[in-house]
Amino acid sequence: MKMPKVAIVVGSKSDLPVVERCTKILEEFGISYDVKVLSAHRTPFETQEFAVNADNYYDIIIAGAGKAAHLPGVIASYTLLPVIGLPIKSSTLDGLDSLLSIVQMPKGIPVATVAIDGAENAALLACHILSLKYTYLKEALADYREKMAEEVLNN
Amino acid sequence: MKMPKVAIVVGSKSDLPVVERCTKILEEFGISYDVKVLSAHRTPFETQEFAVNADNYYDIIIAGAGKAAHLPGVIASYTLLPVIGLPIKSSTLDGLDSLLSIVQMPKGIPVATVAIDGAENAALLACHILSLKYTYLKEALADYREKMAEEVLNN
Amino acid sequence: MKMPKVAIVVGSKSDLPVVERCTKILEEFGISYDVKVLSAHRTPFETQEFAVNADNYYDIIIAGAGKAAHLPGVIASYTLLPVIGLPIKSSTLDGLDSLLSIVQMPKGIPVATVAIDGAENAALLACHILSLKYTYLKEALADYREKMAEEVLNN
Amino acid sequence: MKMPKVAIVVGSKSDLPVVERCTKILEEFGISYDVKVLSAHRTPFETQEFAVNADNYYDIIIAGAGKAAHLPGVIASYTLLPVIGLPIKSSTLDGLDSLLSIVQMPKGIPVATVAIDGAENAALLACHILSLKYTYLKEALADYREKMAEEVLNN
Amino acid sequence: MKMPKVAIVVGSKSDLPVVERCTKILEEFGISYDVKVLSAHRTPFETQEFAVNADNYYDIIIAGAGKAAHLPGVIASYTLLPVIGLPIKSSTLDGLDSLLSIVQMPKGIPVATVAIDGAENAALLACHILSLKYTYLKEALADYREKMAEEVLNN
Amino acid sequence: MKMPKVAIVVGSKSDLPVVERCTKILEEFGISYDVKVLSAHRTPFETQEFAVNADNYYDIIIAGAGKAAHLPGVIASYTLLPVIGLPIKSSTLDGLDSLLSIVQMPKGIPVATVAIDGAENAALLACHILSLKYTYLKEALADYREKMAEEVLNN
Amino acid sequence: MKMPKVAIVVGSKSDLPVVERCTKILEEFGISYDVKVLSAHRTPFETQEFAVNADNYYDIIIAGAGKAAHLPGVIASYTLLPVIGLPIKSSTLDGLDSLLSIVQMPKGIPVATVAIDGAENAALLACHILSLKYTYLKEALADYREKMAEEVLNN
Amino acid sequence: MKMPKVAIVVGSKSDLPVVERCTKILEEFGISYDVKVLSAHRTPFETQEFAVNADNYYDIIIAGAGKAAHLPGVIASYTLLPVIGLPIKSSTLDGLDSLLSIVQMPKGIPVATVAIDGAENAALLACHILSLKYTYLKEALADYREKMAEEVLNN
Repeated sequence: MKMPKVAIVVGSKSDLPVVERCTKILEEFGISYDVKVLSAHRTPFETQEFAVNADNYYDIIIAGAGKAAHLPGVIASYTLLPVIGLPIKSSTLDGLDSLLSIVQMPKGIPVATVAIDGAENAALLACHILSLKYTYLKEALADYREKMAEEVLNN
Repeated sequence: MKMPKVAIVVGSKSDLPVVERCTKILEEFGISYDVKVLSAHRTPFETQEFAVNADNYYDIIIAGAGKAAHLPGVIASYTLLPVIGLPIKSSTLDGLDSLLSIVQMPKGIPVATVAIDGAENAALLACHILSLKYTYLKEALADYREKMAEEVLNN
Repeated sequence: MKMPKVAIVVGSKSDLPVVERCTKILEEFGISYDVKVLSAHRTPFETQEFAVNADNYYDIIIAGAGKAAHLPGVIASYTLLPVIGLPIKSSTLDGLDSLLSIVQMPKGIPVATVAIDGAENAALLACHILSLKYTYLKEALADYREKMAEEVLNN
Repeated sequence: MKMPKVAIVVGSKSDLPVVERCTKILEEFGISYDVKVLSAHRTPFETQEFAVNADNYYDIIIAGAGKAAHLPGVIASYTLLPVIGLPIKSSTLDGLDSLLSIVQMPKGIPVATVAIDGAENAALLACHILSLKYTYLKEALADYREKMAEEVLNN
Repeated sequence: MKMPKVAIVVGSKSDLPVVERCTKILEEFGISYDVKVLSAHRTPFETQEFAVNADNYYDIIIAGAGKAAHLPGVIASYTLLPVIGLPIKSSTLDGLDSLLSIVQMPKGIPVATVAIDGAENAALLACHILSLKYTYLKEALADYREKMAEEVLNN
Repeated sequence: MKMPKVAIVVGSKSDLPVVERCTKILEEFGISYDVKVLSAHRTPFETQEFAVNADNYYDIIIAGAGKAAHLPGVIASYTLLPVIGLPIKSSTLDGLDSLLSIVQMPKGIPVATVAIDGAENAALLACHILSLKYTYLKEALADYREKMAEEVLNN
Repeated sequence: MKMPKVAIVVGSKSDLPVVERCTKILEEFGISYDVKVLSAHRTPFETQEFAVNADNYYDIIIAGAGKAAHLPGVIASYTLLPVIGLPIKSSTLDGLDSLLSIVQMPKGIPVATVAIDGAENAALLACHILSLKYTYLKEALADYREKMAEEVLNN
Repeated sequence: MKMPKVAIVVGSKSDLPVVERCTKILEEFGISYDVKVLSAHRTPFETQEFAVNADNYYDIIIAGAGKAAHLPGVIASYTLLPVIGLPIKSSTLDGLDSLLSIVQMPKGIPVATVAIDGAENAALLACHILSLKYTYLKEALADYREKMAEEVLNN
């Protein structure tokens, strides 16, 4: 049986610490992933090439970026895969610019946006979406929820 | 072969006109759906009951709400299905309250948020996600994109 | 004579330092309280169970949460007790997301919202409300106000 | 048995239409009320006089105002009664100025704030608070919630 | 000839460091002043008493406060003296709440508002206003401007 | 005895309706005024010339502008007269841009800012300031306040 | 001598009325232009093709878009021509989303941003920039400024 | 052949560290520049003199300022040169005040605005604009882009 594969793309090397919180979750779910640094603006051709071919390798894409965060939307414009947008807080405006640049996508090309710096939820959202096709993930998700509940209640 | 089924839930009857833009897209894709009015606050038990059992009937849930828009997050807390959150502009604050109440979900329970009043994109995001499992949708999505491009270019 | 009892609920262990400023006030007023960590999203069943039964044990509930802060509204949807909402500043957006998620409750289920990180005022508001029923608190409130005035004037 | 009495105070005659949505709820609950127009700034002495003596006549005060909405906080500074603050949207800024001027009260003098233009919830919050002392209101509140749920579900 | 006298009032002891930048300017202009800590909410009677009698002692009042900053508006409601409002940044929202609570005064009672934490400008504005009556200040103001220009140009 | 004279300057002809609410107040107080349309950006030389010479003709300047509203600050940089800044709401952003462009003046050159579209308060603030020098205005201000109070109380 | 040529690109047909205010200015300056509707998201390949080849036909590009307005940044990533970004107000958030999506471009790929719906200024900025190379435009710009000043002063 | 020359003007000495990131880019491109500290408000005459004569010495002006950042707009009002506005984050409001004060310029006098604290992009935008006239810069810009892309891809 084919296994799920996630692409995680961020706009700059400085976003990688946020991504680590994302990959940790995917590893907990035993989901394989690639991390790529690709800029919508500084490497537009490579970004396009990645996005156009992504459905040959991946089931879903998580794209994180800060400031005028075009990366998730630009990738979504080149692929039919679901794209999860992760707004990353940059030095000013507390991530509001990233959030609006990602979530306010115009009609036609949606991006599934999570909270500012919500790297864990980007990964979890990927798991929920992947579980439609890879149904064995449902059990892992149910376990994860149970574990979360226990952590809250044991406090 | 099993067909995809989408649940669309909104918090109040006044949100139904926004939903229509959503269902029109689903119909274009031949995807079956149910529309329900359920309030996270005024009908919490019915909302819970719906959400707890949703995976018996649906593949994905689109939940739209305005103001302190808890509906998508509350539903997501009771189901492992992917939940798409649609922030609806209410009478003041231009939908910023709805957006933040939906997108800023804390760690653990993600909601795939689209633009304020982005009903069409909520439906399209559902199609992209469903196409992971119902692969025949990919062709329809590719056609839809082509049609959109033509509409832009013929202007 | 029956004594007042307050429930303080927060969405995560990380909110407990804010709560301490709240409980210190309640202790000054000799009001008994319980502190619980319950998440609207990660422990929805336990939150519901708490809220549904709260009027057997408590007179009023203070609920604090950050980000998309649904906890106060969700609890309010399950109880007729007055619910005080305490927006807690999280890592981005300076608590504006928490504030709007709590205060902008739609018609039907009100939450009595205080300032962002206004833990002391959440407790004091509880005292003012409780003094309707437990009239002996009025004197303590009057004394508290006098003491506050003296502190200001002695500066 | 003494009956509950609510004071509704607004800062200007132009706020009265918002108040009507408030009084309609109180009438549904059979709660007696007075409506007063008093400005924190244009009638400071009368506002003070009202607030200082309010606990002789009322159980709770609902105060609504727009722009730099000081009325709820100013009244709260002169009374030990619980004060519910109702931010009213004025011509610019969509009520954000009113909301922040009311909800961000500094430590010591809380105001129980509801949503911008949330007149019905101001009244309902008063009912919940009054039900601590006037326990017969609990039944009416339970009925009201049931009726609301039915209205949602019958849509 | 009578000399100018300024009252500086702040809502809490924690605001005093901001005030120091204000008094330093007044001292440069040789203007006498009193600093008072008076809270619109915690010492409403003393605030009223101060404001009602202020025109016996002062020419102008500078009032600084944070959060729901009612102090300048409340003082202005009790005096015909010009009142300068100084919004002070508190722990969240970067002073936006203070600014809107001070500058958005409703029709009838104006407050001359300066920038968030703009203590020096509050003092300078007082000097400009006072120079209408105490015309000898004009020369000092002209000198101050010249000195400022030199400081800029010598960088 | 010399009489007070106010200059009212706005950045564009489209701002004149807002100014009318300002001049009506000045007329009530019998204060003479001139209205000028001068743009900080489109007529910088004329604006400078006006501002440099303003103290020969006027006691105080009210300057209103919208969007990136530089007019009040630019005028203030050329005169020692007190400058009242009136932020005018333009087609987008609800006047927030005007407000911040006027009130957030950097250290050294203050502008006495009133509420967005607060034309009446700009005029009243001028009266309060002028009453320092033209003490006969105090009585008119006291009468005005009394009349305002009556209007509120007669509602 | 070669003449200047401007490309005006907008993301949707609904943006064309805003563009008209832009082209009217270019016509006043006798500058030739093309208007294109190209969407960064719905026609990414055509947008890329346009941008990659733009320097064969044009001196400068004006790109206008609403919501998550990626068009100016995406075009800038494919060309060395100066790109002027025109944020267009869409149905919610008053254009703040468009503004931040355009102006907050990350390091490396700048977009010269003008005001929300500032179509005339986008055109005028193009003229100022073009006048570096096409120096005959300086006279027209000087005339335009003079005419603007006269219009202001004749009010 | 005449070489390009850029003027960089900031409103205060405290802005100079931001400027350094700007000059470093210009040096990489071998573009000569002058840095000046000139305040729109504290040195209005010197600012005017600089701006009126700037086209004798410079091709383009970069103007950076914080808070109510009038400098770029004021300079633009006195020159036909293109003016690049650089909003600088000051102590509160995260630079939103600077951004709006610069980008929201009214019709007639445009300022080419870059991101808050986007000093590098201000310099790069200058290079793109200058390359219209100084075409040898195109090659350097192409090289710079290639180098940026490599840096991204080598991460």
